[in-house]
Amino acid sequence: MSTPLRLASREDLRAWCTHIRQSGGTVGFVPTMGALHAGHRSLARASRERGLTTLASIFVNPMQFGPNEDFDRYPRSLDTDADALEREGVAAIFAPSVEEMVSAGDRTTVSVRELTQHFCGPFRPGHFDGVSTVVARLFSLVGPCVAFFGRKDYQQVAVIRRMTTDLAMPIEVVACPTLRDEDGLAMSSRNRYLNPAARHQALSLARGLHAASEAYHAGERRADSLVFLARQEVVSCMDSVDYVALGDADSLAPLAGTVLRAPAVLAIAASLGGTRLIDNIVFGIDPSPIGKHP
Amino acid sequence: MSTPLRLASREDLRAWCTHIRQSGGTVGFVPTMGALHAGHRSLARASRERGLTTLASIFVNPMQFGPNEDFDRYPRSLDTDADALEREGVAAIFAPSVEEMVSAGDRTTVSVRELTQHFCGPFRPGHFDGVSTVVARLFSLVGPCVAFFGRKDYQQVAVIRRMTTDLAMPIEVVACPTLRDEDGLAMSSRNRYLNPAARHQALSLARGLHAASEAYHAGERRADSLVFLARQEVVSCMDSVDYVALGDADSLAPLAGTVLRAPAVLAIAASLGGTRLIDNIVFGIDPSPIGKHP
Repeated sequence: MSTPLRLASREDLRAWCTHIRQSGGTVGFVPTMGALHAGHRSLARASRERGLTTLASIFVNPMQFGPNEDFDRYPRSLDTDADALEREGVAAIFAPSVEEMVSAGDRTTVSVRELTQHFCGPFRPGHFDGVSTVVARLFSLVGPCVAFFGRKDYQQVAVIRRMTTDLAMPIEVVACPTLRDEDGLAMSSRNRYLNPAARHQALSLARGLHAASEAYHAGERRADSLVFLARQEVVSCMDSVDYVALGDADSLAPLAGTVLRAPAVLAIAASLGGTRLIDNIVFGIDPSPIGKHP
Repeated sequence: MSTPLRLASREDLRAWCTHIRQSGGTVGFVPTMGALHAGHRSLARASRERGLTTLASIFVNPMQFGPNEDFDRYPRSLDTDADALEREGVAAIFAPSVEEMVSAGDRTTVSVRELTQHFCGPFRPGHFDGVSTVVARLFSLVGPCVAFFGRKDYQQVAVIRRMTTDLAMPIEVVACPTLRDEDGLAMSSRNRYLNPAARHQALSLARGLHAASEAYHAGERRADSLVFLARQEVVSCMDSVDYVALGDADSLAPLAGTVLRAPAVLAIAASLGGTRLIDNIVFGIDPSPIGKHP
């Protein structure tokens, strides 16, 4: 493996991507906020396995953090991240400064309606607008590509997929499976905020999803029962639970009170000692096993 | 001149534009709502004069019309338009159906803040979101290009320019001068709604701008005086006046009560017999003479 090229400016990024395409290649794009873990590395690997020329971006996007969220303390580890990306065969890294990505006179927002009203939407006002706007900007710079996202951020992928379709962007969005540690905890850059005791309690998210999954595979289709099974694992372990909710797998529209007939996603957000964690499992598309005995 | 190619689908459009670029050409893009007049033709000519391969789109975009606006009666004249474009050496025409451009599950909006609060913004709620969203979609389909717009829709060009900058789109936006009929009336597809008497009264817009322009060139720099000169021509002739306003040429921020120091735009919107007309003149960038004795 050779050291990934470091692209410093928007112009460098655009020129490099154009060059790759003109040379007959296809750009595989892995947008990240850094603090990379095996989940991110699996995205780069998915790109490599498709024979793409992989570009990773590392940008902690201030637009997607609320005023009381963890933008300042969000982990930053560029050199370690670059080493990890090199081992995954990433060809280039775009790690812009905030000034490079957010111009002073910026007044444009890309918003996706409805999907952003569910799950995390009410708890993180403005978050998804921040995500869709910065991703639209990155997609404009990168140009036609295959973009890889982790399914742990299920709602984020749904929003980005909707945006690329609606704005007719020449982007193929690929959602990759959630990676989990041995104990079942979904990998997240925010897991490093957890001490061992907190981490033990945080396993309740995966345990709740696992309980619902077992019931689903045993034939349970009542949304409220599946939510109840997950919720009861989580409420006793976490400081606060934003939601445990079942939504339509595409629109994310709430399925409370219904009997599942179409693919659905069971999603959880809950906090512990100031660390907010999310996790989800999809029913009816992909069994997506969430690990052994979480 | 050969007959312009008719591109029927999004896929055809994208493929044709990619082919032009791969052949070493540059796409000159003229987005229109059809009902073409000499102003539109001058955009195609500007593209040809730069040696570009010209693409025109014709799409009456429902998203940019309010519920009480003239979407249904907006003039449509595709065959005449195609002939006119052929005479201007346009290489291809994209004239999609509403179904082709607006998908049923569409939930994404591109919004530009602040600039859209001035001038027409308060009078046409949602209009500029409709414009920026459909233009973003067209730009995604067309890809890197030079796009030509008429300066008669000054606020529209400012919004689109801001959007392309903020979303880092690979698009050069060119604003072309307003074209006027012999009598000074700014060309507009909506002029065909005017009977001769109404047309005579509509000349008050150009006359008002001309009066302000003469004063500006004689040294007047007080915003309120320039606005007063324009307004007094318009109020007596038009049924209703939405605004006569001076704004900063870039941000469009109101300049009422100030003394002009930077480039500024004087803009008017007024209605007559249900037809809403707009016009503008720019001070301090380009004298942009508005015709002889309007």
